[in-house]
Amino acid sequence: MSSKPLKWVPIGGLGEVGKNMMMFEYDEEILLIDAGIMFPESDMHGIDAVIPDYGFLKNKRDRVRAIIITHGHEDHTGAITHVVRDFPNAPIYATPLTRGLLEVKLKDARVLDRSKIHTIATDGEIEVGPFRVEFFRMCHSIPDNVGLGITTPAGLIVHSGDFKFDHTPVDGKPSNFAKLAEFAGRGVLALFADSTNAEIAGTTPSERAIEPTFEHIFRDAEGRVIVATFASLVSRVQQVVNVCDVYGRKLALAGTSMVENVKMAQKMGYLDIPDGMLVRLEEANKMKPDSVAIMATGTQGEPSAVLGRMAVGKHPVISVMPGDTIVMSAHPIPGNEEYIHRIINRLFQRGAEVLYDPVAKVHVSGHASQEEQKLLMSLIRPKYFIPIHGELRMLKAHARLAHELGIPRDRTFVVENGTPVEFVDGQARQLDRIPGGYVFVDGSGVGDIGKAVIRDREVLARDGFVTVVIRRDRDGRLAEKPEIITRGFVYMKDSEPLLQAMSQAVADALKDITDKTDESAIRERATEALSKMIYNETKRRPMIVAIVA
Amino acid sequence: MSSKPLKWVPIGGLGEVGKNMMMFEYDEEILLIDAGIMFPESDMHGIDAVIPDYGFLKNKRDRVRAIIITHGHEDHTGAITHVVRDFPNAPIYATPLTRGLLEVKLKDARVLDRSKIHTIATDGEIEVGPFRVEFFRMCHSIPDNVGLGITTPAGLIVHSGDFKFDHTPVDGKPSNFAKLAEFAGRGVLALFADSTNAEIAGTTPSERAIEPTFEHIFRDAEGRVIVATFASLVSRVQQVVNVCDVYGRKLALAGTSMVENVKMAQKMGYLDIPDGMLVRLEEANKMKPDSVAIMATGTQGEPSAVLGRMAVGKHPVISVMPGDTIVMSAHPIPGNEEYIHRIINRLFQRGAEVLYDPVAKVHVSGHASQEEQKLLMSLIRPKYFIPIHGELRMLKAHARLAHELGIPRDRTFVVENGTPVEFVDGQARQLDRIPGGYVFVDGSGVGDIGKAVIRDREVLARDGFVTVVIRRDRDGRLAEKPEIITRGFVYMKDSEPLLQAMSQAVADALKDITDKTDESAIRERATEALSKMIYNETKRRPMIVAIVA
Repeated sequence: MSSKPLKWVPIGGLGEVGKNMMMFEYDEEILLIDAGIMFPESDMHGIDAVIPDYGFLKNKRDRVRAIIITHGHEDHTGAITHVVRDFPNAPIYATPLTRGLLEVKLKDARVLDRSKIHTIATDGEIEVGPFRVEFFRMCHSIPDNVGLGITTPAGLIVHSGDFKFDHTPVDGKPSNFAKLAEFAGRGVLALFADSTNAEIAGTTPSERAIEPTFEHIFRDAEGRVIVATFASLVSRVQQVVNVCDVYGRKLALAGTSMVENVKMAQKMGYLDIPDGMLVRLEEANKMKPDSVAIMATGTQGEPSAVLGRMAVGKHPVISVMPGDTIVMSAHPIPGNEEYIHRIINRLFQRGAEVLYDPVAKVHVSGHASQEEQKLLMSLIRPKYFIPIHGELRMLKAHARLAHELGIPRDRTFVVENGTPVEFVDGQARQLDRIPGGYVFVDGSGVGDIGKAVIRDREVLARDGFVTVVIRRDRDGRLAEKPEIITRGFVYMKDSEPLLQAMSQAVADALKDITDKTDESAIRERATEALSKMIYNETKRRPMIVAIVA
Repeated sequence: MSSKPLKWVPIGGLGEVGKNMMMFEYDEEILLIDAGIMFPESDMHGIDAVIPDYGFLKNKRDRVRAIIITHGHEDHTGAITHVVRDFPNAPIYATPLTRGLLEVKLKDARVLDRSKIHTIATDGEIEVGPFRVEFFRMCHSIPDNVGLGITTPAGLIVHSGDFKFDHTPVDGKPSNFAKLAEFAGRGVLALFADSTNAEIAGTTPSERAIEPTFEHIFRDAEGRVIVATFASLVSRVQQVVNVCDVYGRKLALAGTSMVENVKMAQKMGYLDIPDGMLVRLEEANKMKPDSVAIMATGTQGEPSAVLGRMAVGKHPVISVMPGDTIVMSAHPIPGNEEYIHRIINRLFQRGAEVLYDPVAKVHVSGHASQEEQKLLMSLIRPKYFIPIHGELRMLKAHARLAHELGIPRDRTFVVENGTPVEFVDGQARQLDRIPGGYVFVDGSGVGDIGKAVIRDREVLARDGFVTVVIRRDRDGRLAEKPEIITRGFVYMKDSEPLLQAMSQAVADALKDITDKTDESAIRERATEALSKMIYNETKRRPMIVAIVA
């Protein structure tokens, strides 16, 4: 034991605590874990992605000894290009497949050559500063996923990473129970564990649980089978390859990220695809429908992904037709349900049969449910328990489980992003929240959009805007009727009387102006009169901009 | 049998087919069923509600013989004030509680005196034109809900209305199985049935299934219990009243619609509340927390409803405090999940305990699941089956059940809103879709917002707008650097160099204009230069408005 503090901070990102990034700091030496992005919430208008706000590390950049990426999913890797730019001297550690997926990203962003990536085996070990980090395999919906055992001068920390306990994983490589037991033997100061499914009773089914359904679908389908899933769900690709093999179908891939990831995973030996099975999408189109399957992206309702385009008849190669069986093999990320359902409805409209949860068992979660979460706690027997990787409601549910298992309330810390927990002399306590939050990515801009701009977009989305152009004559009086221009407010062609009345309202408000009236006063009077008149007439509150020409 | 056709049309409204309104027409005489609204989809920016587009009936208004409202929920009653204005001569028929809920709405809109409402018993019967309509009780999450048996010259139609088969309903009044069997005996031409839960296997639990959980919550809660639910869920109010009675708590109501509906339902005898149990919200606030419960609105994440205000600390009377137990006793309407979860997280942040599905069994669906849907078909044994009240995917799932039960594919019609089905000489066929869709309500405007305006709002929501003001001198040349005004695009104060460059780009594009260059050419050139320059610099596409002053 040392009397210096070990500090843990879950960093920025939306809702899910510590999901996109977290840090450990001891004696001014820093270890970062993960570099992910989140989908924006639906009222973050126009935002493309949200990355963790690690601005508080600005003056400590050279003290970051390592960045460890636990697995290859977007919410753990998506911010890697930003992180590489901002911490140019920190080495990155990842398991082989994770490294492969990172390199696809870094190459696309042309920063691969300045990245220092090291491959670590799934049972590897590294020493960085005061930290000794032992990797251990944990099952998830992607191969080469790891948890971390971090030996620090303050004690042993176990971080589950994303996990489930799958006893029959697709790649045949189960979670490393022996290592978990070994940690318990050494004595664990704190367990940080995945809370995603803490609201779900029971045990998450094995990835293999979907195979009977897939067998059934491929056996009975009279036309093409189109399986949509995440591009990074390498094990699902293997499962589709296997069933294609059994039923003698060729396989085509649709979507850039799907094509790139499969190519890389195959090259690295993570996908076992029989020679000659893969065909190009254009070829697949010419083959007999019952001799081909297609894997595509777009399960989250994204209009620009393959499935979204197919649904509106705008994919350049694939047209949905009667006889097609389309399988939605992914769960909806919360907030996307409405868009996903719309796509399912549209695919039905085009005559396809669509299979999705709960109508067919075509997807299972990659995260542990309550019984597995309890098992992890029982195996590890930690002194302190910190639920992570979840919204506050999930952390609360996970903490409730810990209490049921006898971990006392004062040894359980439910904190939100930005709130550190400090360990000194075997005791933990919560510190004050570090200011900051998350950073918006919009187009090529990173962090240039703040809450004020989002608020303006909210107003514009709701009621549009009205511009009034006020032209003055030489005496400073109104030269003509104020001109009204609107967008997103009313359909201008059908609203001539309203627009006339709006112009008149401004004219009335400005009837006594002279060359002594200053412009800001004119703008203010015009805006006030217009906004009042518009609200009375329409009960709407568009944004108003008055221009004095 | 007659050889004139009977025509059925599910009318407008969003996704859910025939939910908000449907019509039967025989020999130019029309029967309308329901007058509901839908919540707008999340990309219908700024829209407050969506009502069915019954514009195709414009020239047939006087042929509407009756409007029947099957029960008192918003998606069946919410457009009643519009319907009363547009069909002033059509009598409205509703069961007692439904009538009470309609009258609350009509009174608020000051059109009660011009409405002709008739009360019909839940086993009542009316003759309207060529239709004989027999009402029959069906269980749902509101009392006085009915299905309809409609005897027409073309045959007997059975319409399930919203339903579940609850053998132990809160009001003690189960579905009218005898009537269903009697219809079957007479021979049913077509069954129209609720598809909401056609994707869900098994049987929907009884409303009573939540009572043990509520007992448990009220017994153990050390502070206030705040139950949030729909204002129209009268049976849930009764259940909370019952458990308040057992555990000696007073009950306060929060939310105008909750207060109004409870007052009306109590007056009409649909709620049995012990004398002295109801207290005002302000009083409740002064009482000992463990002696009071509150029922509130806002389960759908609406920021302006009671729960939404409580979550951000802005309710004028109730402040959430540690010790409060908040129960979310409603299911999320699809599309609202994200907002609901945000509210749950915020209530946790304020120290409350929050209980919701699936963490606690505090709500059950009001709609039949697959086994009940099969039972209805088996009871009725219709010649034709038409799934209604659901999105296309649900209708498809419901049709699949019908096929499993032996109803042939060519006697099952899965159609979308606006597509008529015609019955002649005992045969049914689908007709061409009637043009139309739905009508947006925005502020006080009904139907003045179309797709073009929504598209503009979409652009504005994503990237905001840029206005450039171009001032010319006497020679028609630029008098000064073009002025740039933006909203929702970038934070203007931090973006001076970008704004300067934008102004310069316009100046460059207009450097050779003279008094001969006309205004529209100037606007076009400025817009083009600006949009290109902005996309190159920022990868954003704001709306651009050029004004020549």
